[in-house]
Amino acid sequence: MKYLNQYVETFQEALKQNEFKDEPKELYEPINYILTLGGKRLRPIITLMATDLFGGDMSQAIKPSLAIEYFHNFTLMHDDIMDKAPLRRGKTTVHEKYNVDRAILSGDALLIKAYQYFEDLPDNKFKEIVTLFSKTGQDLCEGQQYDMNFETQLEVTEEEYMKMIYYKTGVLTAASFKIGAIIADASPEDANHIFDFGKHLGIAFQLKDDLLDVYGDSSKVGKMHAGDIFENKKTILFIKALEKANEEQATELRYWYKLNTENIDKVYSVENIFKQLRVDHMVEREILEHTKLAKQYLEKIEGIENKKVLKDFCDDLIGRSF
Amino acid sequence: MKYLNQYVETFQEALKQNEFKDEPKELYEPINYILTLGGKRLRPIITLMATDLFGGDMSQAIKPSLAIEYFHNFTLMHDDIMDKAPLRRGKTTVHEKYNVDRAILSGDALLIKAYQYFEDLPDNKFKEIVTLFSKTGQDLCEGQQYDMNFETQLEVTEEEYMKMIYYKTGVLTAASFKIGAIIADASPEDANHIFDFGKHLGIAFQLKDDLLDVYGDSSKVGKMHAGDIFENKKTILFIKALEKANEEQATELRYWYKLNTENIDKVYSVENIFKQLRVDHMVEREILEHTKLAKQYLEKIEGIENKKVLKDFCDDLIGRSF
Repeated sequence: MKYLNQYVETFQEALKQNEFKDEPKELYEPINYILTLGGKRLRPIITLMATDLFGGDMSQAIKPSLAIEYFHNFTLMHDDIMDKAPLRRGKTTVHEKYNVDRAILSGDALLIKAYQYFEDLPDNKFKEIVTLFSKTGQDLCEGQQYDMNFETQLEVTEEEYMKMIYYKTGVLTAASFKIGAIIADASPEDANHIFDFGKHLGIAFQLKDDLLDVYGDSSKVGKMHAGDIFENKKTILFIKALEKANEEQATELRYWYKLNTENIDKVYSVENIFKQLRVDHMVEREILEHTKLAKQYLEKIEGIENKKVLKDFCDDLIGRSF
Repeated sequence: MKYLNQYVETFQEALKQNEFKDEPKELYEPINYILTLGGKRLRPIITLMATDLFGGDMSQAIKPSLAIEYFHNFTLMHDDIMDKAPLRRGKTTVHEKYNVDRAILSGDALLIKAYQYFEDLPDNKFKEIVTLFSKTGQDLCEGQQYDMNFETQLEVTEEEYMKMIYYKTGVLTAASFKIGAIIADASPEDANHIFDFGKHLGIAFQLKDDLLDVYGDSSKVGKMHAGDIFENKKTILFIKALEKANEEQATELRYWYKLNTENIDKVYSVENIFKQLRVDHMVEREILEHTKLAKQYLEKIEGIENKKVLKDFCDDLIGRSF
């Protein structure tokens, strides 16, 4: 995605410039560590891009874009504790490298730092953006709780699942766009349209992520093939399959999703049912639906001339095979 | 403290009115639980009192005072995990009653809720107060990290200790006063003076807390006598004692503070050294010093007529025997 290069470079440079040198180092070391683990940096890049495309001054969006990346990493630090995840992006997670206490406290500090990175904005924009940011944070906490509930919940409806991924992925993507729009003085209508564009793009992105767990090129995905199945994650694949399954298939699916096993037969059996039911087609249709909705909102935006960038961005995120 | 009654009642009523009814209940239940455990509610009361004494509209300070109590309880939820504390105010702590994951996530949600409770303020006050609030949060995280460092740090200087209690107790007390002042449109000078008043009052309060651990009326303190000694906490008593101790006393003190034992001889021996060295006198002197400083800042305030309330408040907090 070459057209993103200028935003990526601006962001990476800012991230480096803003490495935390505060004391006590025990608090800031885990923060600097997680921030150097990499990742796609999609959210802060979205903010920079939105500011730029709406004709705003990108330099004003730099610290807010850092705020968004800090916020995202705060959630990763705490979620990894809850998920007991040993690895993040192939590297040791914060609570494993240091300890749980430090991952909690450094996460807290990082969330507060995120709020501080909006302080250069004028009063009115500060309030509008911080209000949106807090609402986003609240939604994310609620989404994470729903996700945790699903682990022990016997049946998860598609509606419940869609709400959860909207909270966990859609909202922050949407807010990242809208924050850029506000910084660039976009009209309130346009700011809402790009929010909705981001919302559906975020949902489509997450559904694609679910799909790639089984149907992706695992050598490129960078994650273990069918990791979600091993972890009994009730993703959209499982939910769609259960909707369409006959009694025998449903019994088998439920059987496997109750077992904690590394047995490869589990993946074979579950994937076999997925294939019989053509789950991938159903999910592809859902992804297409949200991509279409995203593009409809994009059409409505009046303050952006160069919409091609956003269309390409959308297609690249959704079209990816890993 | 009868003169506080109106603030206490206003706050308690607001707390009840604002019980969280949001979904998912798994996220908000631990929040409602910790908020009903009671406590002195000093910080929110301070905000209401400051707004009132500076002649402001107390109704505008209600949600900010809730924000401060939420923030305080967020820190308690997370600190209790780190301290592995089974009890808080005589009741089961959140991570013990629910689990660590929920205590982390509900704490995060409560911090974000705190930020949201400033949103009724006009743009300029919102920014000024949220900026102060974030700085306070940052200081508290740093203070908590220093406190954790002290557990394994062999020697803690008085300077390091004073900085830690300023971060952990002084700053939030100070900010609670200043937020009330800002809401009431106090002059910037007065807002800073009441901040400094609160800072020294908070420090004196914490030193008094340290003192009461050994020298308090444990039937009234509501905590186990000499709990800090059992937990090897390097409080001001220990630090002052070590400063003045001869070689033999120092060796004995260090010996006991390395042991994890329930042996009552530990308390006898340590308290005996404290008494030989008249540690209580030294700490009393320090408390007096900070009380004096607090009152000097109180004198400088121009926008409050009825300073007696604040003097009484100061004397009552510092004069308490439990």
